Amino acid sequence: MTTTRTTSSDDTRALGVVAGEPLSAEELRRIDAYWRAANYLSVGQIYLMGNPLLREPLQPAQVKPRLLGHWGTTPGLNLLYAHLSRIIAARGREVIYVTGPGHGGPGLVANTWLEGTYSEVYPRISQDLTGMQRLFTQFSFPGGIPSHVAPETPGSIHEGGELGYSLSHAYGAALDNPDLVVACVIGDGEAETGPLAASWHSNKFLDPVGDGAVLPILHLNGYKIANPTVLARIGDAELCALLEGYGHKPYLVDGDDPTTVHQLLAATLDTVFDEITEIQRAAREGDVTDRPRWPMIVLRTPKGWTGPKVVDGLPVEGTWRAHQVPLTAARDDAAHLDALHAWMTSYRPDELFDTDGTPQPWIVDWLPRGDLRMSANPHANGGRYPRDLELPAFRDYAVKAGETAEATRVLGGWLRDVLTANAEYRNFRLVGPDETESNRLGAVLDTTGKAWQARVDDVDQHLDRHGRVMEILSETTCQGWLEGYLLTGRHGLFSCYEAFIHIVDSMVNQHAKWLKTTRHLGWRKPVPSLNYLLTSHVWRQDHNGTSHQDPGFIDHVVNKKAEVVRVYLPPDANTLLSVADHCLRSRDYINVIVAGKQPAPTWLDMDDAALHCARGLGIWDWASNDDGDPDVVLAAAGDVPTCEILATTDLLRQHLPDLKVRVVNVVDLMRLQPVSEHPHGLPDPEFDAIFTTDRPVIMAYHGYPWLIHRLTYRRTNHHNLHVRGYKEEGTTTTPFDMLVVNDMDRFHLVMDVIDRVPGRGRKAAVLRQQMVDKRAEHRAYVRRTGEDLPEIRDWTWPHTP
Amino acid sequence: MTTTRTTSSDDTRALGVVAGEPLSAEELRRIDAYWRAANYLSVGQIYLMGNPLLREPLQPAQVKPRLLGHWGTTPGLNLLYAHLSRIIAARGREVIYVTGPGHGGPGLVANTWLEGTYSEVYPRISQDLTGMQRLFTQFSFPGGIPSHVAPETPGSIHEGGELGYSLSHAYGAALDNPDLVVACVIGDGEAETGPLAASWHSNKFLDPVGDGAVLPILHLNGYKIANPTVLARIGDAELCALLEGYGHKPYLVDGDDPTTVHQLLAATLDTVFDEITEIQRAAREGDVTDRPRWPMIVLRTPKGWTGPKVVDGLPVEGTWRAHQVPLTAARDDAAHLDALHAWMTSYRPDELFDTDGTPQPWIVDWLPRGDLRMSANPHANGGRYPRDLELPAFRDYAVKAGETAEATRVLGGWLRDVLTANAEYRNFRLVGPDETESNRLGAVLDTTGKAWQARVDDVDQHLDRHGRVMEILSETTCQGWLEGYLLTGRHGLFSCYEAFIHIVDSMVNQHAKWLKTTRHLGWRKPVPSLNYLLTSHVWRQDHNGTSHQDPGFIDHVVNKKAEVVRVYLPPDANTLLSVADHCLRSRDYINVIVAGKQPAPTWLDMDDAALHCARGLGIWDWASNDDGDPDVVLAAAGDVPTCEILATTDLLRQHLPDLKVRVVNVVDLMRLQPVSEHPHGLPDPEFDAIFTTDRPVIMAYHGYPWLIHRLTYRRTNHHNLHVRGYKEEGTTTTPFDMLVVNDMDRFHLVMDVIDRVPGRGRKAAVLRQQMVDKRAEHRAYVRRTGEDLPEIRDWTWPHTP
Repeated sequence: MTTTRTTSSDDTRALGVVAGEPLSAEELRRIDAYWRAANYLSVGQIYLMGNPLLREPLQPAQVKPRLLGHWGTTPGLNLLYAHLSRIIAARGREVIYVTGPGHGGPGLVANTWLEGTYSEVYPRISQDLTGMQRLFTQFSFPGGIPSHVAPETPGSIHEGGELGYSLSHAYGAALDNPDLVVACVIGDGEAETGPLAASWHSNKFLDPVGDGAVLPILHLNGYKIANPTVLARIGDAELCALLEGYGHKPYLVDGDDPTTVHQLLAATLDTVFDEITEIQRAAREGDVTDRPRWPMIVLRTPKGWTGPKVVDGLPVEGTWRAHQVPLTAARDDAAHLDALHAWMTSYRPDELFDTDGTPQPWIVDWLPRGDLRMSANPHANGGRYPRDLELPAFRDYAVKAGETAEATRVLGGWLRDVLTANAEYRNFRLVGPDETESNRLGAVLDTTGKAWQARVDDVDQHLDRHGRVMEILSETTCQGWLEGYLLTGRHGLFSCYEAFIHIVDSMVNQHAKWLKTTRHLGWRKPVPSLNYLLTSHVWRQDHNGTSHQDPGFIDHVVNKKAEVVRVYLPPDANTLLSVADHCLRSRDYINVIVAGKQPAPTWLDMDDAALHCARGLGIWDWASNDDGDPDVVLAAAGDVPTCEILATTDLLRQHLPDLKVRVVNVVDLMRLQPVSEHPHGLPDPEFDAIFTTDRPVIMAYHGYPWLIHRLTYRRTNHHNLHVRGYKEEGTTTTPFDMLVVNDMDRFHLVMDVIDRVPGRGRKAAVLRQQMVDKRAEHRAYVRRTGEDLPEIRDWTWPHTP
Repeated sequence: MTTTRTTSSDDTRALGVVAGEPLSAEELRRIDAYWRAANYLSVGQIYLMGNPLLREPLQPAQVKPRLLGHWGTTPGLNLLYAHLSRIIAARGREVIYVTGPGHGGPGLVANTWLEGTYSEVYPRISQDLTGMQRLFTQFSFPGGIPSHVAPETPGSIHEGGELGYSLSHAYGAALDNPDLVVACVIGDGEAETGPLAASWHSNKFLDPVGDGAVLPILHLNGYKIANPTVLARIGDAELCALLEGYGHKPYLVDGDDPTTVHQLLAATLDTVFDEITEIQRAAREGDVTDRPRWPMIVLRTPKGWTGPKVVDGLPVEGTWRAHQVPLTAARDDAAHLDALHAWMTSYRPDELFDTDGTPQPWIVDWLPRGDLRMSANPHANGGRYPRDLELPAFRDYAVKAGETAEATRVLGGWLRDVLTANAEYRNFRLVGPDETESNRLGAVLDTTGKAWQARVDDVDQHLDRHGRVMEILSETTCQGWLEGYLLTGRHGLFSCYEAFIHIVDSMVNQHAKWLKTTRHLGWRKPVPSLNYLLTSHVWRQDHNGTSHQDPGFIDHVVNKKAEVVRVYLPPDANTLLSVADHCLRSRDYINVIVAGKQPAPTWLDMDDAALHCARGLGIWDWASNDDGDPDVVLAAAGDVPTCEILATTDLLRQHLPDLKVRVVNVVDLMRLQPVSEHPHGLPDPEFDAIFTTDRPVIMAYHGYPWLIHRLTYRRTNHHNLHVRGYKEEGTTTTPFDMLVVNDMDRFHLVMDVIDRVPGRGRKAAVLRQQMVDKRAEHRAYVRRTGEDLPEIRDWTWPHTP
């Protein structure tokens, strides 16, 4: 087999084309028959609810009343599935299949049924006529399965509903799986999205020694719903330049004649698998340390290939009209019904299935067996080598209560040792957009480096071909990598500036939906939780200003299904350690941890911290003087709010010593909800015992205050709850001024207490005016000096319990 | 001047380099002096709060206590600003400057001060020593200005805090401004983000005839906060391939010797402006209709160029250590203070400013004048030709009450005529990800096409070099285009599937923050509102299933400043017309309109619809039988909830005719909030009059139900409010089943009423059981047939008022 380059008209650059006809006549016959079977089963799923093998005349009532599904991308997906199966069977390589055009659901379901996996997972959908009937009917049908490649589809780690994440998912899956090839089909529609466009550069982070390979297959079928795709219309020379610019060696498979395309694709896959093997050998044997130019494939076949060429006088095959359901009136229009019949029988089903509807042995007996089937590969269901993390005892990293610490820096020490303890298992990664050191987790670089395969210069630090910290200035790529890594059974943590994590809002939605579904699929194994550490948070973005200030990711996450989401606001370094330990042990959750990186007091010793985190929220007796009967409850959630509530308490105890103050701290935000709303919800009697049923509650909260009302509106004492938080009044200023402009500073909180606890007389009125004056003094001071008042910067909790 | 191509070692492909020394000695001297002045003023802003011209010995107390700012990118930004000013002055071309590395705020502020614009806008910051002192002190200082290129910076349409949007903003600004060149500096960090990576393909949508030009300048200074950038380490050949693959003709300006770089950059800018002029001439005179390969520049200069080379023994210039503040201890460490002094005096300030601190005339007298200054260009402040839209009378598009209509299709007819009416002003665009027709706005294609400059095939429809509908499968690119278009004074509408608009959550944050700030800057002109039409919404994604179901964008937007955000849920086609008319007339808001595209009843005739929209919410007397004293209030917000509440009302009136039902409809969601929280808030007495103070209120809401509680928890009758909405129970099913699985169906709503209105006796108990049975009947029916019960599909409001 030889590789030749052809020359296109407008440039000397052209996509590589592989010559050769590697398939014997028999191989060709079998692979084509398999492809026809998959196509037949795909069309059947879209259209039929009866008569699956067309062994009687097709009746309108056998056509589904609602025709839902996407045909256009399906034949290409089926073609690739068939040919990758050939490679797996021939070479014994492990391959999983990531379906970027995930709306081609019927195709993937068809293949998994032909492989037998579908019937193993769902015995009702047996590999016979009854099963085929059910397979067809259930598709896009109430009580059945979604039209997309969904969690319900065996072998999938990627729901294709929202486009853009296939390639970063594929890279995440390949990391630390050196024997795995992740074939990733990228639709040319999806290729227009930002997340996909950014993720091409993932190849600068993939270690050919310790990681597996990703084989991107750009499926250039030319059209979206109603438009051509950009990449299909820029010409081969420009496309080739683009893909080479992404660092790939692109091969073109182009055609609309099945026999030709089968040979071309087989030859090309042989070549690219040879190249992948050679790249890995050269890297692993140490011959080559340069960044490899990984091969990739451009598959250009007609949209809706083998489907109706013309419908109602308009061209369909090869156009955007093939995107969804080509014959829309098959139930009501006899011509459409006839065309459907002709289309389906063009695949010659009688040749493909025996009388019982079982696939003919010769069509499937060449497929890979057991867990080499892409639909049964364990990597795509919880991981081939799943194991919990080895976690060093977090108590050993404790900060002494009363000491000042940077919480994330303390966490960094523990994470360093988590990395070390699991180094041999290669199952833990940190991801983030260029912020590991900025977020003060730099200790991890004592034990590993930052993954990097591109050029290294003398001045660089910590860049490492085998590094386990992954940084690219693309939150979507970080998120995609981590999702792919988790969904294949490994563990990780995403550290990010709080404000910019909104960039992945939509990806979080999709992952939450995935987890919501998979936790109710018995055959799906749990996967490690998606853990966020949000730091450089809203209250400490006084220097970067308004654009960096947004605490709303919590609100976004809390809208997701309660069984999936957890939100933690550890008030200090010790509680952060405890929470992080808990999160890294968990599975099937989305855990959001918000914690600061700036020097801050340590409130609790480690025993108290662990107990407090286990309870999720509780009264801080050592800070309270209420003797079980408070005049006011001061509550806090978040590190900065906790400090401010304690400073408020201090002011009150100094100036209104008779006022009985109860201090409550919330680590686990979900404890605020009723039990009926969230599994972590605190039962009402306990909630009432802590927050009282009739005393004013002044709460300082890390984020938007109304979230607290939304969580607590059913609580007995809700009408007495007054919440301060971020109300979009950020700017470039000092840390304390951030509190002042949002009315969450200690002076304002004292005013809030006085305003809500009546009958405290002249002393309270004087104090209130003092607080007004202090706020004015503060404003004048910061505008003059650029710094906070020393008494605020230097404040510490002065009371002994 | 000649263009030569050099050959790099690993490939025949290399970035173009322009030879020639176009600057005379005098021009070189002036432009270098200007650049030094800008650099001096930039460093001064970062460090000094006194002694701005260093005319006395530098004291620690003159250094700011907190050193904030980003030096690394600044000298490059200043260099480009200077050279673009030369081009503008020489050619009289209009240029605006989009600063991707927007954290280089001091640079842009310095240039605008040198141009005089800053002092015109902020007279306190005069062009003299006093002004310079204030200029320095205010930067990143409480009560001063942010460290980024912010709304406060004259000439900016782009806050650089969150990276990724510079290039799409630039394209948005260039659209329909044929005489404008938008110079867009893209940091190599920013280039790693998804939104930026996707937006390179914007050049396939820019019309060389009717639009202006975008000049991308990739500023390859090599480092992010702590890492090298990907594009700086892939080699010139691969970089060149990538940029050519993006469709550009790239030119390299590379160096670290100022004189050489000045000449090289001047020669390159001359070349690229010649090429831009020629491309436009050829297209406008009709010689050429092919897609142009627009020129672009790769500027490779050291990070922190001209700053300290070594600090504390470590290399700084040309490394990531130059990213922020190179001399971090200038106030406390004498060596750092000396180094700062040496650094600043290296720019020879005494040569640059006169004794009064005013820039020497010879340094600034060659700059462009008046509104040709990039900082004073009206395009960057509300538009050079701002005008309101001509809006056809929306009442003329009314649907008769009682008729069935697809609301967005009706809107499409009006939008078509909006496009026609404003065609000559070229100031209105529709953007969206491949969904204009899917969202049933296809009528607009009767009057304009879809912008497209790439190859067109016979089968294509509506592709048009001059089209005003812009579709790319990238929500972030759509958003960026539209923002750039609006910020330069034109109008637009973004139509999108509701679930996937979360992809732009973070961009919406930034735009909301921009609007929040600019509406309080007297010199900033209002800009047309950012209008969303969210359709294909959660209740009508029964066919695509769970991945397409998410109504949370409303929650996200409502977290933004109340003065900026508006949310509308028109219940039918006529109210949609009225709302859309209102939104397209407005300025400085973010308007979110959620409306369905499926056939649905028209509840109100146009007069009532307009009145209802003006009120924002109100009692629907025609549907109520409460005689002013209801037993229960049934409220709805959203088209599907409205239909369901009316069906519920119908059931109640049939089966419990004595029950007095009041029907309330909410179009303007912000009316639910108290006046204190939102300018649209309904005063409490009016709210109480409508929702009562003591009767049960059952509300069906389009989105997550808890949002309604968050908006109304301060209302008198809140404890009687019971809200149904989407609770993440979506799947692939029928439209009505979507309601059933979320308990928002008419049967469940009847049950809710019965459960909350006591004392209705056996009749109510029987009805309740009937409702339970109907739900079961429904479930069985849809699972058998795939369709909803005919009685549900065919239900219409049967009562006459």
